[in-house]
Amino acid sequence: MSNESAIGVFDSGLGGLSAVRELKKLLPNENIIYFGDTGRVPYGSKSREIIRKYTAQDAKFLLSHGVKAILAACGTVSSNAMECIEAITDIPVFGVVEDAAREAYEASRTKRVGVIGTQATVNSGIFKRKIEERDAHAEVLQSACPLFVPLVEYGFTAEGDEITRLACERYLAPFRGEVDTLILGCTHFPILEKAISAALPGVTLINPASAAAKAMAKTLKEQDLLSAREKNGEIRYFVSDEPAHFAAEGKIFLGKDFEISAKKIEIDKF
Amino acid sequence: MSNESAIGVFDSGLGGLSAVRELKKLLPNENIIYFGDTGRVPYGSKSREIIRKYTAQDAKFLLSHGVKAILAACGTVSSNAMECIEAITDIPVFGVVEDAAREAYEASRTKRVGVIGTQATVNSGIFKRKIEERDAHAEVLQSACPLFVPLVEYGFTAEGDEITRLACERYLAPFRGEVDTLILGCTHFPILEKAISAALPGVTLINPASAAAKAMAKTLKEQDLLSAREKNGEIRYFVSDEPAHFAAEGKIFLGKDFEISAKKIEIDKF
Repeated sequence: MSNESAIGVFDSGLGGLSAVRELKKLLPNENIIYFGDTGRVPYGSKSREIIRKYTAQDAKFLLSHGVKAILAACGTVSSNAMECIEAITDIPVFGVVEDAAREAYEASRTKRVGVIGTQATVNSGIFKRKIEERDAHAEVLQSACPLFVPLVEYGFTAEGDEITRLACERYLAPFRGEVDTLILGCTHFPILEKAISAALPGVTLINPASAAAKAMAKTLKEQDLLSAREKNGEIRYFVSDEPAHFAAEGKIFLGKDFEISAKKIEIDKF
Repeated sequence: MSNESAIGVFDSGLGGLSAVRELKKLLPNENIIYFGDTGRVPYGSKSREIIRKYTAQDAKFLLSHGVKAILAACGTVSSNAMECIEAITDIPVFGVVEDAAREAYEASRTKRVGVIGTQATVNSGIFKRKIEERDAHAEVLQSACPLFVPLVEYGFTAEGDEITRLACERYLAPFRGEVDTLILGCTHFPILEKAISAALPGVTLINPASAAAKAMAKTLKEQDLLSAREKNGEIRYFVSDEPAHFAAEGKIFLGKDFEISAKKIEIDKF
């Protein structure tokens, strides 16, 4: 492990690519290794024991490539299993909950924060709990927006798409006038950022992948772990199921100019 | 096995309940045993070998209850594994492809038929092939409507729902003026029947679950296998994962007046 080692990012599937996008913005010269556990997605509906086992395997795979830091770009892992990574390595480890909760709390003037996510994330109450741990008087309003995930995956993402606009109107109406900051608590939601913002003008949107990437960049700098590379870093992609599908859908998160070539690995062996 | 034995229905998940609804309409006095393989859903993305193994297990579970007929209310099973059921039993067996393709072909005056389904069903081309086997001159136009599944599962089903109306407009425009009959090639789609019909006025909609239920009723009558029961039959539900979720979501397909109490079984043991 050295300054020239890659940053490791993993997720249960594709959504974690939104963290890769944020890292590329902040640290374009770093190498990145991404693992998407597409063969075992979704984690959200699995037992805690299984989630912890999978998390350790995902981290071991990244560690086998000598990564210098790990970003678990998966809400389920971040809520249930961060210590399973910390138990097997001393390198800096980041999730998509802690930094987002802190950033949202700090950004809010009224200390009234909204959280949107899948039904599982809202049921877990993880962002709400993290904010209330900071300030018992903070108010956190949560609401599930499950249709946002298929709207992203099935391509309803063009600017001004009428179906997506109406879905934002319907799901976000309860937040209007109630919060000044909203956590986009699902890796897919930042893709709909403009539509969400149009439905909630003046509300600050917090992207957990961006919060995690910022926290990682800060730590790597503080610990003098940044690469000295003077050109763009490389990104390598690994998955546990069919790579072709991943390459096609990945463009939703990274943009269509990204060339994605993924390699299949046997994650069970880690 | 006797006339008073139950009818067996299975699916990879919840969607097969649409076949239960159709059977209840046609044969209200029959007992029904439903198995939803919710612990291993979805089948569509799995290998053919795995689909065939699961299908045989699902059928064996139903046969262990002495059913007198089986309806495989799953498009993936109907396209890939019907002979795996026929190999282990002599009772009548029905899928959701054959009878729907026949019914659509017979209903069409112009012999121009549309098919909508998930991306996997459209890619498989199964309905198109079955119709073209009947008549090489028939024209079959296919289109995937993937957003319809989450629209149903996340409750966008109220009559006149604007989001669902717009999704129907967008997905179904290519069929307008092109076909006179449309196969609803996914168990979820009949829930949106009114919205689909509004987008394609004058087009005959074919519900594969209904076609299968009609074919089964006809066969049971011909083979003198109908029950003599003079009151409503009972429905028993079995699943391979958390029953509570099944009971809640099942109401989408059966209507909210249905009391659903499901029991979890170990399908791997069959």
